[in-house]
This record gives sequence, C-alpha cells and structure tokens, in this order.
Amino acid sequence: MTDCRPVAAGAFPDHAPTFTGFCCAERFAVDNRANTTPDVQGNDPAMNATENSNSAYKVVGTRPIRHDGLDKVTGRAIYGADIQLSAMVYGAVARSPHAHAVIRKIDTSRAESLPGVLAVATGNDMPAAESKVEESGDISLNYSFPSRNVMAQGKVLYSGHVVAAVAALDRNTALEAASLIDVEYELLEPVMNVHDALAPGAPVVVPDLVGNDVGEPVRDTNVATHLHYELGDPDAGFEQAATIIERSFELATVHQGYIEPQAGTAYWNAEDRLTVWTSTQGAFGARRQLANILRMPESRIKVVPLEIGGGFGGKISVYLEPVAAILSRKCGRPVKMWMDRKSVFEATGPAAGGAVRVKIGVNEKGYITAAEAEFKYEAGAFPGAPIAQAIECGFAPYRVPNARVDGYDLIVNKPKTAAYRAPGTTHAAFAIETVMDELGEKLGIDPIELRRMNASREGDRRVDGPIWGPRFNLEVLEAAKNSPHWTSPLERDETDGKRQGRGLAMGYWRNGGRKSAATLSVNIDGTVALVEGSVDIGGTRVALAMQAAEVLGIPVEDVRPTVADTEGIGFTDITAGSRTAYATGYATYNAAQSVIAELKKRAALVWDIDHEQIGFEDGVFRSNLDSELQMSFKELAARLDTTGGPVITAGSVDLTDASGAFGIHIADVEIDPETGKTDVIRYTVVQDVGRAVHPSYVEGQIQGGASQGVGWALNEEYFMGDDGVMLNASFLDYRMPTSLDLPMIDVILVEKGNPLHPFGVRGVGEVPITPPVAAIANAIHDALGVRMRVTPMNPGRILNALEAKAAGSRSR
Amino acid sequence: MTDCRPVAAGAFPDHAPTFTGFCCAERFAVDNRANTTPDVQGNDPAMNATENSNSAYKVVGTRPIRHDGLDKVTGRAIYGADIQLSAMVYGAVARSPHAHAVIRKIDTSRAESLPGVLAVATGNDMPAAESKVEESGDISLNYSFPSRNVMAQGKVLYSGHVVAAVAALDRNTALEAASLIDVEYELLEPVMNVHDALAPGAPVVVPDLVGNDVGEPVRDTNVATHLHYELGDPDAGFEQAATIIERSFELATVHQGYIEPQAGTAYWNAEDRLTVWTSTQGAFGARRQLANILRMPESRIKVVPLEIGGGFGGKISVYLEPVAAILSRKCGRPVKMWMDRKSVFEATGPAAGGAVRVKIGVNEKGYITAAEAEFKYEAGAFPGAPIAQAIECGFAPYRVPNARVDGYDLIVNKPKTAAYRAPGTTHAAFAIETVMDELGEKLGIDPIELRRMNASREGDRRVDGPIWGPRFNLEVLEAAKNSPHWTSPLERDETDGKRQGRGLAMGYWRNGGRKSAATLSVNIDGTVALVEGSVDIGGTRVALAMQAAEVLGIPVEDVRPTVADTEGIGFTDITAGSRTAYATGYATYNAAQSVIAELKKRAALVWDIDHEQIGFEDGVFRSNLDSELQMSFKELAARLDTTGGPVITAGSVDLTDASGAFGIHIADVEIDPETGKTDVIRYTVVQDVGRAVHPSYVEGQIQGGASQGVGWALNEEYFMGDDGVMLNASFLDYRMPTSLDLPMIDVILVEKGNPLHPFGVRGVGEVPITPPVAAIANAIHDALGVRMRVTPMNPGRILNALEAKAAGSRSR
Repeated sequence: MTDCRPVAAGAFPDHAPTFTGFCCAERFAVDNRANTTPDVQGNDPAMNATENSNSAYKVVGTRPIRHDGLDKVTGRAIYGADIQLSAMVYGAVARSPHAHAVIRKIDTSRAESLPGVLAVATGNDMPAAESKVEESGDISLNYSFPSRNVMAQGKVLYSGHVVAAVAALDRNTALEAASLIDVEYELLEPVMNVHDALAPGAPVVVPDLVGNDVGEPVRDTNVATHLHYELGDPDAGFEQAATIIERSFELATVHQGYIEPQAGTAYWNAEDRLTVWTSTQGAFGARRQLANILRMPESRIKVVPLEIGGGFGGKISVYLEPVAAILSRKCGRPVKMWMDRKSVFEATGPAAGGAVRVKIGVNEKGYITAAEAEFKYEAGAFPGAPIAQAIECGFAPYRVPNARVDGYDLIVNKPKTAAYRAPGTTHAAFAIETVMDELGEKLGIDPIELRRMNASREGDRRVDGPIWGPRFNLEVLEAAKNSPHWTSPLERDETDGKRQGRGLAMGYWRNGGRKSAATLSVNIDGTVALVEGSVDIGGTRVALAMQAAEVLGIPVEDVRPTVADTEGIGFTDITAGSRTAYATGYATYNAAQSVIAELKKRAALVWDIDHEQIGFEDGVFRSNLDSELQMSFKELAARLDTTGGPVITAGSVDLTDASGAFGIHIADVEIDPETGKTDVIRYTVVQDVGRAVHPSYVEGQIQGGASQGVGWALNEEYFMGDDGVMLNASFLDYRMPTSLDLPMIDVILVEKGNPLHPFGVRGVGEVPITPPVAAIANAIHDALGVRMRVTPMNPGRILNALEAKAAGSRSR
Repeated sequence: MTDCRPVAAGAFPDHAPTFTGFCCAERFAVDNRANTTPDVQGNDPAMNATENSNSAYKVVGTRPIRHDGLDKVTGRAIYGADIQLSAMVYGAVARSPHAHAVIRKIDTSRAESLPGVLAVATGNDMPAAESKVEESGDISLNYSFPSRNVMAQGKVLYSGHVVAAVAALDRNTALEAASLIDVEYELLEPVMNVHDALAPGAPVVVPDLVGNDVGEPVRDTNVATHLHYELGDPDAGFEQAATIIERSFELATVHQGYIEPQAGTAYWNAEDRLTVWTSTQGAFGARRQLANILRMPESRIKVVPLEIGGGFGGKISVYLEPVAAILSRKCGRPVKMWMDRKSVFEATGPAAGGAVRVKIGVNEKGYITAAEAEFKYEAGAFPGAPIAQAIECGFAPYRVPNARVDGYDLIVNKPKTAAYRAPGTTHAAFAIETVMDELGEKLGIDPIELRRMNASREGDRRVDGPIWGPRFNLEVLEAAKNSPHWTSPLERDETDGKRQGRGLAMGYWRNGGRKSAATLSVNIDGTVALVEGSVDIGGTRVALAMQAAEVLGIPVEDVRPTVADTEGIGFTDITAGSRTAYATGYATYNAAQSVIAELKKRAALVWDIDHEQIGFEDGVFRSNLDSELQMSFKELAARLDTTGGPVITAGSVDLTDASGAFGIHIADVEIDPETGKTDVIRYTVVQDVGRAVHPSYVEGQIQGGASQGVGWALNEEYFMGDDGVMLNASFLDYRMPTSLDLPMIDVILVEKGNPLHPFGVRGVGEVPITPPVAAIANAIHDALGVRMRVTPMNPGRILNALEAKAAGSRSR
C-alpha cells in the first residue's frame, strides 16, 4: 500500500523558508512550558507572580492544550490561501517599480490577449469612493484613501503600489499577464522620511489631502495631522528643573513579519452578493472596509475568516480582497490571490518609522517637573500613523505635572503603515526610557527607584487631558525589583574582550474593549459548543472556552469553540488592541451565565421546585432547601431532551473601558567591540496581566512581543535606495531574530486582576513590544558607555558609536 | 480573452442525465407561479383558499425569491460531493452481488497491493456496536443494525450490501481496488416479499433478531414487530353493518428518487475527532447515528451539512459517512465517497413495499360501523417499516367506532427501507380510500358526501387509542366539493377510443414538532443574520427568514439565513416530519421576539424612558407616552453601536405536539385501452396548510408530493429477479414521471391556521403523497370499471384487468 501519512495542507510555496524557528501564529511564541508541571519546576513563571493567583478558579489559570492545536501542527488548519472553490481562478497584480509617479497611461491589451486571462482591472474599475471626512472630520473615515491604497488611481505613491490586476485560469498565467501590463509613468521626486516630508517645498504626496493642523484644515501639505497638547505650565516646569535632558531619536520602518503572507479569495455573485474568504484579524472589520471601498451595503458581504498565520496589527486592513472582488465581478468566478514575501514587505503596512524628540526636567530630588515630546511618525502613503497612541501612552508610567507634546502624522512615499503591537509606543518608550535612564545615571538614582518615585497614580492627569484610572505600575516595579534577574548582579566577564551590560525600560499600553458576541449551545452529553466572532491569533479559542468552562463548572475540553463568519454571529470587533480574551471573553462569560440561569429552570422542572431556590456551585446544581437534590452540569444536560429541548444562549458586550497595562523589560547584552555584534544573553519581562487565563499563552504573547522588540532594536529596518525602492525585501535580507538568536525570555506575571472583568482578565499582547528597544539601548550603554539613539542598533552603528566615543575621549 | 462565464460547480458525472425535468430539491417542484400576480390570474390557488388569508401579515403569505436560489440555479451551491479538502482521497466500496449469503472469507490482498490504495476496510473494522435494545425495548435503538447496514458483518442481506471499502489517491483507483476485493459467499435462499417472510419455514434473514410480537419477544423470526390494536367491539360492529367490503392490496417497493446520490466526506484526525461533510436531512441526526455506529461521544463529531439535492426521508440515515470515517481513521486523510445511481437504488432506503388488507362495514345509511386492517410492510434487511404510522394515519379522516388493526414489520432481503414522505400512509390510503370508493359506488353516495358523513371529529378516539385533537377535515372536504375541478364535470370524449375517468381520495399525516434552535444577530444597517440548524430542502431558509422578518417588521431580503453545522447552533432535529417551517420557524420567532425586547431597551436608552413604555408595531418602535418618539427598526439598528453594542438573541423550542393535516386529491385520467397506458390529464390537490408562509413553496411541496404519488401509482417499482437482484436500477429503467408526463398540479390551499403556532404555520410536505395512488386507482375504475389493487398500475396490469373483466362479462 502507498504510504498513507497525512500531508501538509500548506499552500504557500513562498513561505516555506520562513518556518525555521517560528510557530504559526506568533513569530516567536516559544511555548516550552505548556507541558511542564509547575510544582516540579521551581522557576515556573506563574509561581513568581506577586500574588498567589487563580486559587479561586478551576479552569482559569491552567494550561490546557488549545483546541485548534492539532489541526495547526498537522498542517490541517485552513489558512488564507488554503481555500478551494469550484471554478476558482487566480489573481495577480502589477506593481509600481517607482516610489512616486503619475500614471500617464495603462495599456492592458497585451495582458488581455494572453490565453487564459479572464479579467483585467485597473484603478478605473474601483468604485468612486465615498468620502465621509467632511461629515465627521475624521481622516480615517475617508475611504478614498483605502480605495487608492489597494489600487493606485492617478498616482503611484510607493514602490510596490498596485497599478493593475488580472484574473486567469491559473496562477502562472495570471503572473505572466500581470507582467504584460504596460504602464507609462511620469516620475516624481519621492519623499522618504519625516524630515523630507516636513521640509519646505517638499513634493506633496497626496495632493487632495486636507491636513488637520491642531483642528485647522491645511492644503498642499504632507502633514495629515498635527496634534498638540499642553498640560500645566511646561515652561514654568522646566524652569523649576534642576536637570534637563533633551535628546532626539530615529526609528527605522520595520515590518510585523508574520509568517503567512496576505491571501484573499472573493466571489461576487450574480445578485451582487460578495463572499470573501481571508486571513484577517477581524471578519467584521474586513467587511466594513470592503463595504466602504466597494460601495456596497455591509450586509451584502459575507467575510469568512480563515486561520491566520500572524497579524500583529498588519492584518486589519484589506489589500487583495477588494481587488479580488473587482476581478470576480468581472469574470463571474471566485478569484484567489496571495502575496509573495516581497509584496508583503513592499505593499502591506509596516510599522511607522519616525523621529522622536524628548525633553525631561527633574528637580534636585529627581522628581519630574516638566516633559516635552515631539513624535514625527511616517504615515506612509496615506494618513494614519499612531501619534495619538504615542502621546497617550508615552508618559503613562509617570506623573508629569507640566507637559507639552506634539504629534505629526506625515505622508511619505512608503507603503501605508499599519498597526504593529501597541502601535507608536515603542518609539515613545525608546526616547523617554533612554532619557529616564540617562537622568538616573546623572542623578545616581537606581532606575527602578527613579521610576517608582515618579510613578503615575490613579487620579493623575494624562498629558493629553483625561484622568488616569486604577493602575498597577508600582506593583510591576516592585516585582521587577524583586525579580531573580534584577537581584542577581550581571557577571561582567570581559576576558574574551566582549562587554556585558544590563538595561531596563518600562512601557504602557492602553488596551481595547469594544464589541463582541458569543453563543453557547449545550449538548446532551454535557459538552458545549461556543460560537464567537473573534479570529484566533494567539490562542483565544481556548482562552474563551476556559472562561465558559469556568462558569459552567466543566472541563475546558468539553467546550468546543468555533470562530464564525460575519453571518454566523453578532458583530464582533477585530482581534487587536489586546481586547479578545477580555471582551469576547466577557461576552462568553455572559452567555455562560445565561446557560446557568436556563439550566436552573430545567433543574426546577426535574425537581418540581421554584428555580429561584436552586443554586449552582462547583459545577453542581443544588436545591437550597433540600440538600438531597443535586445534579452535576453533565447530569442535567442529559435531561435537556425531556425538559424543553435545546439550551442555546447569546452574550454580547460593548466595553468602552478596558484599562491599560504596564511592563518592565530587563535585558542583559553581550557585545563584541571588534564586530559590534550584540547578543541578548538574558531577558526578563515583568508585566501586569490582570488574570492570566492561560498562562502559557500569556507568556507566549509576552515572549513574542519581546522578541519582536529585540529584532526592532538590533536588526530590522526597511533599507531603501535613494529612489525609494526597498533593497532588502526578503527574509534573507530583512533579518529577524530566530530562536537561535535569543535567550529564553523569562516572564513574570503580575496578576493583579482587572476590576473591569469578572475573572480579572486584562489584555496582554501589546505592551511587551513597548520597552524592548529602550531596554536594549540602555543595556548597550551599560556595556559600552555609548547612547544609541537610532534603530537598528546594528554592528555598524555600534562600531561607529564606539569610534565616536574613542574620538571624543582622544579629543578631550 | 477567454470566455469568463461561470461554470457549473456540479461534481457528479453520474447524475447529469437525471436533471431532465427536475429541479434540485424537489423531483417535480414545478413553481411557475412564483412570479405571477394573484390579482391578474384569477385561478391563483392562494385566492381559492377557504378563508381570506394573510391579511394580518406583511411578509408571511408573500412569495419572495429564496435566499439560496441564485447559488442553486447557477451551480454555485455546495452539494454533498462538491466539498474539496487538502490532501483529500477517494473511497469506494465493494458490494454484494447476492441478496442473501454468508460471507465465508474476504481477501483484500489484491486491493491492498494496488498502487495508490491507502486503506482497506471490511466489517471487521466496524466498532462492535452497542445494543441498547435490552434497556429500552426499542428495536430502533439497536445500533448493531445500522452498523451492519453500512458494512456487512458475517452475512450479506441484500444485493448491493457493502462488504468492503477502500480509499485511494483517486476515484478510479478506488473503484478498481474495490473490484479486486475477493469475497467467498455461501448462498442462502432470499426472502423477497412479505408473504415469503411470513411463510412457515422461511429462511431467517437476521438470526439474532428478537422480534416483538405485541410485546412478547420472539426469536428465529422475520417479524421484527407485530402491532395489534382493537377499538370498541369490531366483531359487533361488523354485525351491525349493512354492507361490508374487504379487499387486499399489494404495493411494490419504490424509491424516493432524489436527484443527488448520497455523498459524504469524513476526516478523522489524530486526536480522534471526526468531521463529516455530507448531504443529509439533519446534521445533528447524522451526528447521533455516527456516534452510535462508531462508538464515539457525539461531541467529538462535527457534521457539516452541505446543500441537499432532495431527500424525502431517504437522507436521514447515514450510509457512506461511517465507512468514510473508518477509512479516514486508517489513512489519516479526508476520504470522500459518493454513490452512483445503481448503488442509490440497491443500497439506500427505498419506501417499504407491502400488502394491505382492509375491511370496512357501513350501516344502511352509509355510516362506518367497524373497520379492520392488516398492514404487512417490508422492513428490508433490518427492522423499521412504518407500520405505526399506517395504523395512526390510515383511518384518521374517519370516525371508526369499532376497529381491529394489525401491523407487521417484516424483514426481507432488500435494502433497509427508509422514510418516504408520510411513510406508510400511501399504502394505507390506497387500500382504505379504494374501499371507501367502492362503498360509495355500491351505496350510491357521492364520495365527498360519504367522507363528510363519516368524518372524524375532535374528541373521537383513534383506532390505536389516543383522542383526536382539532382537525380541519370538514373544511378540506368542503373546499374540494366547491373546487373548480370537482364542480366541472369530466368531459368524456371517447371518440378516439380513449377512456376518461375521475377519482378522489383523502389522506392524513401527523406532522412533527420536536427540537429546533436559531439565533439572530442585528447588523447596524438594519439587516439581520439568522443562524439555524435545519438543512434547507424545500425552501426553509426563506420560510424561516420570513417569520423573522414578520416579527421584526423588515423585508425578508434583510434577513440573511445560514444553516449551521453541529458546532454552530443548538441541537436541531432533522428536516423531516413536516416540522421545519413549523418548529424551526417557531424557534426563529422566539429569537425575533427577544430581538424586539432587547431593542426596546435600546430605544429606552436613546429616549431616556422606561423600556416598558415602548411599543412595537408595523416595524416601528414608539413611546406609549409621547407620540413624537418613534424609530423604525432600521433607524434603531443604526444606533446599536452607541447603545450597548451587538444585539444577538437565541430561540429554541421542543414542540411535542404539531397536529396533522388532511388533503384531498382529485385526479382525471385518460386511458388507452389498446395499450393500457394511463395519462393523468387533470389533477387538483386540496390541503389544509395551516398558514402558508411562502405559498409558492407550499404549492411546490404539494405538487412534488402529488407527482411522486403519480409515479408510485402508475410506473415505479423495484423490479427484482428471482435471485433478489434489482433489474431496473437506473433512471432509464426505473421510470419516474417527468414534467412532460404530468399536467399542472393545481393546488388549493386551505388556510385554517394551526393554533399551535403564532402564525398558524403547519407542516405541509408529506400529506400530498398519501392520497395519489388511491385517487388514480379510483379514477381508473371510473374510466374502465376495473378495480386496480396492485402497484404499479402500469399498462400490462391495466390490460390484464381489462382482459379479466372482459372474460368475467363473457363467462357471466
């Protein structure tokens, strides 16, 4: 017989090389603790929490195997490009080789005449986008920008910008046809960074952009938005300062680096209903974007979310889906499209590069008297850099009585940036935490002590106005101070010429709440089907199932979670903003509470008593009046058929408040001054995680975020030629750290419990990317005595810095 | 460019020839009225209803286009064999060529050594089935029978019985491998009809069967069940009779003849979870069968119901699915299997053939004094003929003061029979309605008048004991009496030698209620997503959506229905028993009422008033106190995002009572005495339909059922050789009527409203197959003066009857 072992279902020839060292959903979600037993492994991170956690819970806080695990590790899960449909055809796009140009003419005739080609589309085929900007004043609602981003209309704004698309019977024909699209360009000077964008006389990238300069409309500008806030009297504050440090920082554009390239399939049927199968962070979010770009009612679009091989914020926006839809409308067939890695780099949303200037004044005791910051972030080709987030979160760990902050959302000829885990805060923390480190050094105050002294408290005012709520920054500082890492001195062994250093940085991210829905259906064998609307990126199926199981008093294996499409569940916001375990968890909790309420009625029928006389505890229904009367959840479920039939309940939430979370990262580095190469040799993250529903996945999120931050700090950058073309658009040249480049990331979970959630659940996935760049910069300073203020802090820059320092010493 | 029109998605090379004259879901669902305007077409059936219907409703009673229509007519809908999965392989089976034999030995070595073969399975691979029969006394719970039906174990019991199965890389290799399975049989004498089965010394087909003879266990028998009921004093009743007629009838085995052959795909994964994609009448029902046959917990099985190309009761049982599961477990791949038409005939469940003896006595006025009946039905190879249904429904139209009825469920060497629309009642009506016709003829009483005189009333006792509830048989009789058909005399034009006749027959079917679940999610554009668990065979998506739309006061197009899999919705019973529009409709109604209740709370938030002060009527929410305050459903939906987020509700029911329905069929035939060929030249159905949610689909159900009944009456039969092998197992030889063979079936909807349902909905799909055989037999008698008591009443039998009649006249 032929060998009958399963074969992998992967459909990406392109992404195979990238698997080394990565798991599917996280770039670095190293989870080698899931199967360890806490009580035999003394250093289990959950045991290091600052309070004895989870004792009240049976399921929450345990580490079960995720429901989707087997399908994912056996290649059976259906990712974006794995969908197969009858009569499906393949799409491909032609992309601009220029960063900035006017499209003079597109000649599609050669492509159209290629046998096997079914449809060709250009920007002219995009429905005229509706601009809602006048009505709301919110640039993000101007859907002409997303429309022009997915298919250039009039101008190309970045190298890789789609200029035309084709559908053909097979992928190779589609690719060949795309290469036969003839475009005549009129080249324009590209604007490649925030300084160029602000330069007087700079080319205007988006001529119809109406910029928002602190509320005033501005035309002929690359400044999409300028925000400005003042708190207290910053000038007076700086006058009170004994010490003021002001520094400027630069961060390169970096990419989320998810394993799975974008992939989408669309079928536009004869009654103008559109179905889209895609790898997305949110089916409902994708539906709304598609509706606006394609000018269709949302309810005529069904988005089926497939498994997602990483997103980190980069899979919120649609790219190929509207193009596939237009092609499908033209040819009447389902059209499948996917990107190669080069396209992912060149034409999906990287994280904003930019420049940050920070000035902090402290009095003689070390208390902050005033702070100032200027965040200049690349929006890419269309507005939307995370300046508001930088302003909100940057100074969040600290009490800042007087402040002046400015944020600039700047159009440049790069791909439109996207969210990347706690967007905008890595830049802010790099600047603020480096300046704090320098202040501590200068004043001779321990970095944790300096942060404790200046810690923000509930009731303090944010630099942008609102009042801070409850916060656990002091608890995180305390846990960091007592951590095995911080309490064990760095062994400086420089016999081989290598130099060691330790750095610390703190960060904050405000989590999201928003809208979620879930249903629960009870099977008569006592198991439960959970249907929810959040796509599962980092283990949310199991995290939601655990919250249901906790309420219902059953094992988590008895809850079977399903991620529904947009016609299968109530509206649910995207899986982003650290919201899913919290908000969709809460919706699941509500549905589970309704199950218990309904089951009490069933028990009342069985026992012929009032359902209000029935209690439920530890998975057992009991009569409050007669202790003989008790039934487990399973026993009662077995009687559903004879007590009224199916039990199905729905839960939903719209959580406007979610509270934020603090993290402290401690990094030890070892640097070879001969080569400038930096190795991270020890790394610890201390983070307030509310209540860790599944500690392994919380640790995985934190390890993944920290690892990405290490890459951002040391290696990663969009390396652009003068013509605005990316020169390192492959995983060979855009070097992300692999597991071999990293130590084990130790994680200390501070479980204070989020008072806004019944189990204390708090979002955890984003804050870990905030401090790493700063922590490593501070560690490098500790090792070498040089302050690095530009990313990546790669060997060349290290050597340059050492050389400059040596020159400074010599000249002094 | 290459032509880009969509291509059909159909995956059945085998079934293409069968499309002629049929639509997908119904064999004959001729619906040419959906687009007619009632007020310009005077004879629109809905206008002929005995009461002016639907006036209170905006959506219920209209004829919108079904939501799934476009996908179905464009070949885009995914039917049983259309599913495509990565690494999927193909299964095929080896079938017994013998009707009754012991399996001496199965040698699979030649099949196993064929390149491309991945797995081979025989009856030895089936898990030992659990027998629950001792516990419950219910033969239908003995899952060793379904297990042995899907794969023979020890004996083959019918020609076509599966003896082995193979999975291979492609379908042709699988078919070739199946042909290489070597089986050594020991032939046994087959038992081919109910008389053989009851004959003393008959071979015992199922040696381990424990028969139930009116409650007593019996061994070494082919009588699986013998039911016996007596009501009143039948002997005394017959003594009071002035006229007694006793006749015997025979019905051939017939098949439902659905277009789509059985198809199933199974994937058994490494953690022993099974997913099955199949064309089934009920995903939850299939799941339960699979769980019992495979000895797995139900909750480890997910059944995904695909579109279904007809079922009529024949797609309730699983056939290929457990076999595909076993093969998948062996080879670790998804295994897809589908039947060819020959296998569908030979090895799925046809309708029971059988024999019926009926004796009815009436007094001199024509009132029934006593009745007797004996129903001997073929179970096929395993127990389960619909004898209880025959007993319950046969005499249901009539008041029978004294009765004696017997039912025999008889094992024969034919495929295990299955339900076929109102199972068991066609046989009963053939016998009873023919005898009633003969009584009317003998007494000179009009057939409608005779039935009116003897009509059963609420409170009368059924022949098997229970008391009848409310019933509308008199209203149906009245409508038939006043119908255009009955009031226009048959034109007897025998100039061409052909003879015309008219016949009438009545029938009853008890509908089902049972368990259903549905959820509704409101979109902010005012549309609603409906998720429900009933597979859509005859238009239930739209019928459920209409009930939701009626409650919500929105157009039905704004409700988007989805049929969920077993992990996507609460338990829902099979689509059968005329229950879906009624019970799942009721669950949908409940969910919609919850939507209104929740939306009142949202309106209360908007208006800042108490939600109990808010009313809802005609799709508008209104303050009871301030007439200025009103919002449409759509307007309020647009405010969901700011009043608490998603609205999602669940509804469920377990309806134990559903009430039944009566129908009267009037048939005009024209017979050529030279050839014996009968043409149906006019046909009218009068039926109590409760409230016709979507009159076109109600008419379609009725037209389909009547058409199937005409085929049963005139043409269809399993033509078996003496060796028990079917000789006409193709649609060329098993002749079903096409649309060219039939007149338009006129339908008169009697809309009395079912008091058990908020809109008065009643099941309608099954009762139309009950009267046709009898109506046509009575029409033939009217035309030729001969009583036909054997189906099919084909030309040969007509000529024989004419010859016998002529011989009788000559001999007299």
